Amino acid sequence: MSENQVPVAPDPDATGPSKSELKKRAKALEKEKKAAEKAAKQQEIAQQQAAAEVDFATEFYGNLPLNRSQSRPRLERVQISSLSSRDGETVLLRARVQTSRAQGNKMVFLNLRQRMDSVQALLTVTPEKVSKQMVKWAAGLADESIVLIQGVVRKTPEPIKSASVSDVEVHVARVHLISGVDGRLPFSLEDASRADIEKETTEVQYNRVLLDTRLNNRVVDLRTQTNQAVFKLQAAIGDLFRKYLGSNGFTEIHSPKLQGAATESGASVFKVSYFKGSAFLAQSPQLAKQMAIAADFERVYEIGPVFRAEDSNTHRHLTEFMGLDLEMTIEEHYHEVMELLDGLFLSIFRGLRERYKDEIQLIGKQFPADEFKWREGPEGTLKLTFKEAVDILVEDGVNRELLGDIKYSTDNERRLGRLVKEKYDTDYFIIDKFPMALRPFYTMPDAEDPTISNSYDFFMRGEEILSGAQRIHDPSLLAEKMRSKGVDPDSMKGYIDAFRMGCAPHGGGGIGLERVLMLFLKLNNIRRASLFPRDPKRLEP
Amino acid sequence: MSENQVPVAPDPDATGPSKSELKKRAKALEKEKKAAEKAAKQQEIAQQQAAAEVDFATEFYGNLPLNRSQSRPRLERVQISSLSSRDGETVLLRARVQTSRAQGNKMVFLNLRQRMDSVQALLTVTPEKVSKQMVKWAAGLADESIVLIQGVVRKTPEPIKSASVSDVEVHVARVHLISGVDGRLPFSLEDASRADIEKETTEVQYNRVLLDTRLNNRVVDLRTQTNQAVFKLQAAIGDLFRKYLGSNGFTEIHSPKLQGAATESGASVFKVSYFKGSAFLAQSPQLAKQMAIAADFERVYEIGPVFRAEDSNTHRHLTEFMGLDLEMTIEEHYHEVMELLDGLFLSIFRGLRERYKDEIQLIGKQFPADEFKWREGPEGTLKLTFKEAVDILVEDGVNRELLGDIKYSTDNERRLGRLVKEKYDTDYFIIDKFPMALRPFYTMPDAEDPTISNSYDFFMRGEEILSGAQRIHDPSLLAEKMRSKGVDPDSMKGYIDAFRMGCAPHGGGGIGLERVLMLFLKLNNIRRASLFPRDPKRLEP
Repeated sequence: MSENQVPVAPDPDATGPSKSELKKRAKALEKEKKAAEKAAKQQEIAQQQAAAEVDFATEFYGNLPLNRSQSRPRLERVQISSLSSRDGETVLLRARVQTSRAQGNKMVFLNLRQRMDSVQALLTVTPEKVSKQMVKWAAGLADESIVLIQGVVRKTPEPIKSASVSDVEVHVARVHLISGVDGRLPFSLEDASRADIEKETTEVQYNRVLLDTRLNNRVVDLRTQTNQAVFKLQAAIGDLFRKYLGSNGFTEIHSPKLQGAATESGASVFKVSYFKGSAFLAQSPQLAKQMAIAADFERVYEIGPVFRAEDSNTHRHLTEFMGLDLEMTIEEHYHEVMELLDGLFLSIFRGLRERYKDEIQLIGKQFPADEFKWREGPEGTLKLTFKEAVDILVEDGVNRELLGDIKYSTDNERRLGRLVKEKYDTDYFIIDKFPMALRPFYTMPDAEDPTISNSYDFFMRGEEILSGAQRIHDPSLLAEKMRSKGVDPDSMKGYIDAFRMGCAPHGGGGIGLERVLMLFLKLNNIRRASLFPRDPKRLEP
Repeated sequence: MSENQVPVAPDPDATGPSKSELKKRAKALEKEKKAAEKAAKQQEIAQQQAAAEVDFATEFYGNLPLNRSQSRPRLERVQISSLSSRDGETVLLRARVQTSRAQGNKMVFLNLRQRMDSVQALLTVTPEKVSKQMVKWAAGLADESIVLIQGVVRKTPEPIKSASVSDVEVHVARVHLISGVDGRLPFSLEDASRADIEKETTEVQYNRVLLDTRLNNRVVDLRTQTNQAVFKLQAAIGDLFRKYLGSNGFTEIHSPKLQGAATESGASVFKVSYFKGSAFLAQSPQLAKQMAIAADFERVYEIGPVFRAEDSNTHRHLTEFMGLDLEMTIEEHYHEVMELLDGLFLSIFRGLRERYKDEIQLIGKQFPADEFKWREGPEGTLKLTFKEAVDILVEDGVNRELLGDIKYSTDNERRLGRLVKEKYDTDYFIIDKFPMALRPFYTMPDAEDPTISNSYDFFMRGEEILSGAQRIHDPSLLAEKMRSKGVDPDSMKGYIDAFRMGCAPHGGGGIGLERVLMLFLKLNNIRRASLFPRDPKRLEP
């Protein structure tokens, strides 16, 4: 207590003592105060000493110094996922404290988390092992702290519902803080993990965590078990893509994202300051992968970022997304490409269902969805022509005149998806032979009807996930089509020249990784399928 | 011939005939001309008929119509690499004509190429099978044309040196042009495939194809067997990287290349127009991968483009290259990361040597190099401290005062590489514990000496290929180090905030894919290791 806070000023309204009396009284008060302070200090020291004497457990808990690699004891640390088989063992593990709940002052329960796994740990006051102070300290651990735990694994009489490893718990002997939390969490992991549907149907008032709040605090949001599973699946799709293509003779390539000219379509390309000039960000590896075919690579794929300067603020548009692109030579007919792409998707769908059942189930708790369906067996994937797809919509009441491109009307696209699902019981299908007018200049026209093209789109749950076609490999026809679409062939000389030096017939397609992930899991917004999403309004974090 | 070309105008200088005479003469000339034209036409038709009668082979050769997928006969086409085992079989194959050489007018040899494989094919005039006209047509095929060949595989009495498949040749029965060459090739594939050393030592004058000419015509340059092998190895390195990390519990991530702020170092970052504001291209996935660790991903890797706006026109700098990045939590000591990275490199080196022997040998013909050497067995990879590395250079006569950073002096770096090779017989080694002053702000200082850091570089043939370190996971220390390096912590709030919500100790590294490829194969210029390289002066093709 500072002197300022001691009320020594005289009360002007009182008929009071003289000045000297006041001075005496002030001195006396001062003396009294000092004595009281001294006594308090002594008591505090005594308490501390007492506490120190009583707390036999000081070495069993507390803050670790910042890890600067000062030592390397080489002690084995285990994963929570392995604990079920370690009954009776003493284990050492690093984990997040998802929650810490005291029961009275003699017991505390910690819910420990590692990625998708969690386990219950507990501390109970025990002579010579766990002190009251240790329990108090553990009970005060902030949610999301990272701790180093040593304890004994014990079978539990009843399954612990709040943990993913439910048949054992850890009886903690030592607990140390590796990394604390500085400030308030933007939201709790429990709130962030709850299904929207649960919030609507239960009577309890939950804190709804809005998508924008999640994305502003993406590092915390990504820690939910749901998101850990989502991004495990994102990696799995890339892996299945590569495995299928690798075993079909494809070579992985990496093409530059910095381009000298605004290609394909000038409107939606990002401009970059490039030393004293300008460059542009590639809207796709289209030109590069075709040039790789002209360079005899035969079959290529690329996994890389794709940039679109479209001011589209929808559930399915990003300004930067991952393109899974491929291009291959054609021996006879572009259906060779379309069929390979179909095989690729089936292998991805099967791979996800077979190898990631647990993750899909876990994600389904937060994002309930009908299981993704596709057709297997001899009948195979449903393939409609554009004309047949239009007929299905017209039959359902859509005005044929208004049906320019199914693809660019999300409503019609989804309606078609719904109608196909009802009729054919599949969430996955192909539309072939789009009108030439709807496709880019490099698309090969049909051999008989030049208003139709050798191109296709693939759909999942009524949304487009792949666009592809046979490409024009003849330089004169290519230049002609460029001009007819308002592109100056001279502006893409390097590209056309590639075909002048001889090029095999070829075709390919581009897949949006985040779209496949979003639609397979029904995440409803593409931002949830991107680690740190970018849209016209978001460049952070 | 048009009328304009017939000389009917009178000569004004001659004492000549009357107007009517002139008219008569003109008429007569006209008549004569028409008769001559008629006779010529008849002769042409007669010749064509004669030719048609003689050429029984018209269906066996000629130009195919442009492939627009007009039919799909589903005929099997084979690879040149499989021909050795097909003696006596009739095969169908699509290939490039590398060269076409007539021998007299009755025989023509075609050197057919598919990627890294080539085979000799021949046409010989044979009654009812191969006509003179057919041989003539085949002899006129431009180099680099793409043809469809049908023929019989036959063992050759002597190995054919000019082809990679040397024990058989194809006796052609049908040859059709799929795609021709429009214009002159910028250089021949044979010239482009020759080793520099060969050009210097032989007496024959060869056309040297300069690197810039190659890069300006990259599509043709990439067709050489050497380049086909180089990019097969590039894909292999990525594959080996993923396989090793996948089996060590890493998850692949994709982080955005568009950033809201110019991070790490403002000087060398590309600026992008982003709707009404600006964005910046990521110089590395450093921040994102660390945030993934703060988001509990535990072990992550990313393969993606990295952008550097440095005006460096050297043999080893690109403005866009492929980063192989990884980041992982540390349990006890950052050497866990360094050792994992070492294991990764050994697995890449072994994988290349074991599985790509033929490709390495093929590339070695054009780029002769001592085989890349590394240490195996119990002694393991050579690990020097920065201090030890400096001592080696000083011992060799380098002035200690001038030795700030080995890394930033290419000369000293290479000199060290040479000294290490002499002393330890290895092209691969690690330097640990760089001075703190030389490393970025996010590097963890040594536990005892704050002027030293927990960081390392990896070297191949005396050039740096990986830079990595333990990172600071404490937000206060991070902010302090930022300020000391002149970076405003407020400009990177999202990044620092990631560590406020608790983050495990972690470390990682970034590898330049093109550098590894260039140095393993000794290609001498990084542009040769990039499909379509980008440098301050090159944005095309």
